[in-house]
Amino acid sequence: MLNFKIALAQVNPHLGAFAENAQRILEQVHRAQSQACDLVVFPEATLFGYHPMDLLERPGVVEAQMKELHRLEKRIPKNIGVFIGAIVPNSKKKGKAYFNAALFLQGGKKSKVFPKQLLPTYDIFDESRHIEPGLVKDNVFKFKGKKLLVTICEDIWAWSGPLSPASARYGENPLTQVKSKDVDLVINLSASPFTDEKLKMRQFVVKTTATHFKAPMVYVNMVGGQDEMIFDGGSYAVDSKGKILLQCQRFVEDFRILDLAEGQAQKGNLAHLPKPLVEQRRQAIVLGLRDFVHKTGFSKVHLGLSGGIDSAVVASLAVEALGPDNVVALTLPGPFTDPQGLQAAHQLAKNLKMACHEIPIEDTFQVKMTSLERAFGSIPFGLVQENLQARLRAVLLMAYSNHQGSLLLNTSNKSELAMGYSTLYGDLCGGLCPIGDLVKGEVLELAHYYNRDREVIPPFIIQRPPSAELAPGQKDEDSLPPYPQLDRAVEKLVEGYRSPKGALDQKVLRAMMASEFKRWQAPPILKLSGHSFGRGRRFPIAHKAIY
Amino acid sequence: MLNFKIALAQVNPHLGAFAENAQRILEQVHRAQSQACDLVVFPEATLFGYHPMDLLERPGVVEAQMKELHRLEKRIPKNIGVFIGAIVPNSKKKGKAYFNAALFLQGGKKSKVFPKQLLPTYDIFDESRHIEPGLVKDNVFKFKGKKLLVTICEDIWAWSGPLSPASARYGENPLTQVKSKDVDLVINLSASPFTDEKLKMRQFVVKTTATHFKAPMVYVNMVGGQDEMIFDGGSYAVDSKGKILLQCQRFVEDFRILDLAEGQAQKGNLAHLPKPLVEQRRQAIVLGLRDFVHKTGFSKVHLGLSGGIDSAVVASLAVEALGPDNVVALTLPGPFTDPQGLQAAHQLAKNLKMACHEIPIEDTFQVKMTSLERAFGSIPFGLVQENLQARLRAVLLMAYSNHQGSLLLNTSNKSELAMGYSTLYGDLCGGLCPIGDLVKGEVLELAHYYNRDREVIPPFIIQRPPSAELAPGQKDEDSLPPYPQLDRAVEKLVEGYRSPKGALDQKVLRAMMASEFKRWQAPPILKLSGHSFGRGRRFPIAHKAIY
Repeated sequence: MLNFKIALAQVNPHLGAFAENAQRILEQVHRAQSQACDLVVFPEATLFGYHPMDLLERPGVVEAQMKELHRLEKRIPKNIGVFIGAIVPNSKKKGKAYFNAALFLQGGKKSKVFPKQLLPTYDIFDESRHIEPGLVKDNVFKFKGKKLLVTICEDIWAWSGPLSPASARYGENPLTQVKSKDVDLVINLSASPFTDEKLKMRQFVVKTTATHFKAPMVYVNMVGGQDEMIFDGGSYAVDSKGKILLQCQRFVEDFRILDLAEGQAQKGNLAHLPKPLVEQRRQAIVLGLRDFVHKTGFSKVHLGLSGGIDSAVVASLAVEALGPDNVVALTLPGPFTDPQGLQAAHQLAKNLKMACHEIPIEDTFQVKMTSLERAFGSIPFGLVQENLQARLRAVLLMAYSNHQGSLLLNTSNKSELAMGYSTLYGDLCGGLCPIGDLVKGEVLELAHYYNRDREVIPPFIIQRPPSAELAPGQKDEDSLPPYPQLDRAVEKLVEGYRSPKGALDQKVLRAMMASEFKRWQAPPILKLSGHSFGRGRRFPIAHKAIY
Repeated sequence: MLNFKIALAQVNPHLGAFAENAQRILEQVHRAQSQACDLVVFPEATLFGYHPMDLLERPGVVEAQMKELHRLEKRIPKNIGVFIGAIVPNSKKKGKAYFNAALFLQGGKKSKVFPKQLLPTYDIFDESRHIEPGLVKDNVFKFKGKKLLVTICEDIWAWSGPLSPASARYGENPLTQVKSKDVDLVINLSASPFTDEKLKMRQFVVKTTATHFKAPMVYVNMVGGQDEMIFDGGSYAVDSKGKILLQCQRFVEDFRILDLAEGQAQKGNLAHLPKPLVEQRRQAIVLGLRDFVHKTGFSKVHLGLSGGIDSAVVASLAVEALGPDNVVALTLPGPFTDPQGLQAAHQLAKNLKMACHEIPIEDTFQVKMTSLERAFGSIPFGLVQENLQARLRAVLLMAYSNHQGSLLLNTSNKSELAMGYSTLYGDLCGGLCPIGDLVKGEVLELAHYYNRDREVIPPFIIQRPPSAELAPGQKDEDSLPPYPQLDRAVEKLVEGYRSPKGALDQKVLRAMMASEFKRWQAPPILKLSGHSFGRGRRFPIAHKAIY
């Protein structure tokens, strides 16, 4: 009978802020200790933060983390076992420089090191660049007479199954090399980022692992934003049949104690999880946006309000993440701006209680065109004039950034990013792109969601046909397929990794491949889907492979 | 006695242009056949092009290449053995989807597949994302009674040695698992990009391999530019003691025949290799620039000439790569432009026989500042005004791009990229950054080199103290350490992967880490050194690991 009391410490580390992360760990350890826990489990890479990327090529970085680790080890009390995640030097003579390891810390004892075996090297993950794999089968040890199997994130993801795309990537499942009878409890430390489908996938791999070993399992996931990734928490524990015993919240730090002696879930220990996908996305973006702004040292953001739906939704999210006093809107009307849209933009700012400044671009536009035509002769209305407007807006938005030390938010959505329907150095500007992984229809859904209780986004903004307003009477659908069809094609081609079928798919694929040069220079994009544009999708520019 | 005649076909494939690449292969095969060769050897990934990156996540891409492969197989003559490189489906049931393989094609016979074992997953290389490793020890086969060992690029790079940083990355050296007596000839198909030190490193690993097996070795490398990578060719063959028997040119396609019966190098079969590093870099950039422009479907480029040394060198390189009729200069004087520098810029354009247009930015600058001050009140002279000038120049340069369908060249160097001493969406604009992997001193060296026979770059440009000319009397050294010291710090911290020592290093490291958000949105940078900024250096933005 396993009667441990185990604390699940779902924390939000700051990448590379070793002292700060150690302090956070220690606080939670004391909290667990004060409640007589036997064990406390933190997420993967708790001390380092995740994803380390090429910080690991700087030798001083892991050295600094190791110093902090040694300080931390000395401060761990004697009567509790602590699992944290850290990056530690590879103790073998050959191979990559580091292990991504779970460490077991106990006051007065030497720490144990359990390296990760399966190293995600796909999409946004680059672990094989610097990490040497260990062997999960060596990660079993005895604590208070019970046998614990220690795994790290991907180590439990090799199970075959329709919900687990990772399964096909690995030649072997390291869990099948561990004897079932050797395991009384499975521990998993994760840094698993949010995607629409991730919760279901995690439930599948955790349940499969627990039932395979006929042992209860504790799964502790990181929470917080790191560049494009949003770790959503949602840590939990299951019994040996995969039944949930404890559930932490998503999108916030949480700390809950599992008493295995109780054998079943206790009321009050099952956090309410946000159900509708649109609500999950909203919370994910708010967390990702807030953490990006704060963890880069900013406190304020601003954005251009066009009177269109994308900027309206980004403004709503930003106000929620940072408060209305920390978000400023600029309206930048040009020669083709609909006055009704401009009015709606001001109304939106008023509804959100955010400051709003108006700076027309028409005068600069005329001066600039005159300069150009003086040099090159008359230029018929077209791409030059259209992009010029977008770029003159960007110049003003960036001047505001320099003036106020404020971070510019980009308002591109996934559908237009796919088509390259944006102006490089124009509306592609910004320090972060919060809705770049939502297709247009999903942005619309979020707009409706913001209006579910009261009117936040003026109906005109939601109902008007999308337009870049860079030419007279221009509508997006003059250049793009109708959004519902475009959205489906983008989802199929990007997240679905599928081949084009039919003329519309072909058109989208060609536009997507031809606009890679723009996305190469795009801001970080908060990842929400199985496959977003951004650093997890690495396409060449100069190529002819349009299939 | 091995008396084969072997053709080394050093070709320049176009990534994803399968039919075009197959045609090029077939032409060289016929050429080899007409000269009674037994074998012809092409570079790694000849048919696909290299680096495939995430093109491999699109299922139709490899399918299309396989169709072209099957067409090609049918057209290979009977009396010659052909080694090409291709991406082929993984024939095992588990693991990543593809092999990066050498194929042995013979008319009328089934092709043999030899998968690569060591998969580079560092710097610009991402092979572990989609490629499953094979076993080099299985890549031995008999041809005309002789035993051939087939290796692909990285497979021979696990030798320990001071010149081979790859050695430490691999747990084992696959070559040591092949019995020496089983090998009469070693073949290596490579796609090895240029770096300053690469030639020496290649000589080390090839000589070590040949002498280890006491067998002659044929090393065929790709030539041509692909986004940030420049494959420099320089294919060659050695005898069993590592002595060079044949040497192909660098930076151009080449085709040479090795007659092993002759036993020693034949006069005329040893291409002259460019010796001085500055000359190698010049040829590398010219190739990388030309291929990027042509392989992306452009024919013309343009750039802003500031009267400074960086833009002068980029202009010289571009004219060499594309001819003076395909390069256009724009001078964009602002309120702080030195008239003498402006005059020198025009003189440079004249010397290079390129067109030059002048468009002053002062009027737009004033209008824009008035707009801003109307909205936000008086703004004291500083960052706002400085960046505004750079961005208004970018707006004009991009308008020219849209007007003429011309590709804008970026003129940033590695020293300023490291310090973030550039304006995002200003002088960081462009479709390609040709000198972004040269520190300031190396740019200067290249400028002197261009003037070695006649005065191309006016002396004023070379001699003046570097300045962004965005504020009265501004000099780079007001904000930056003196360039000679800055350059050394950048080389040490980036290419040397070293820890900072002393205040200057610390200052550079802090500036480098704080400006990651700018480089995240920078154009592709031609890679010349062991470690350049660009997609081979993947640092997070939101972090505190400044060590």
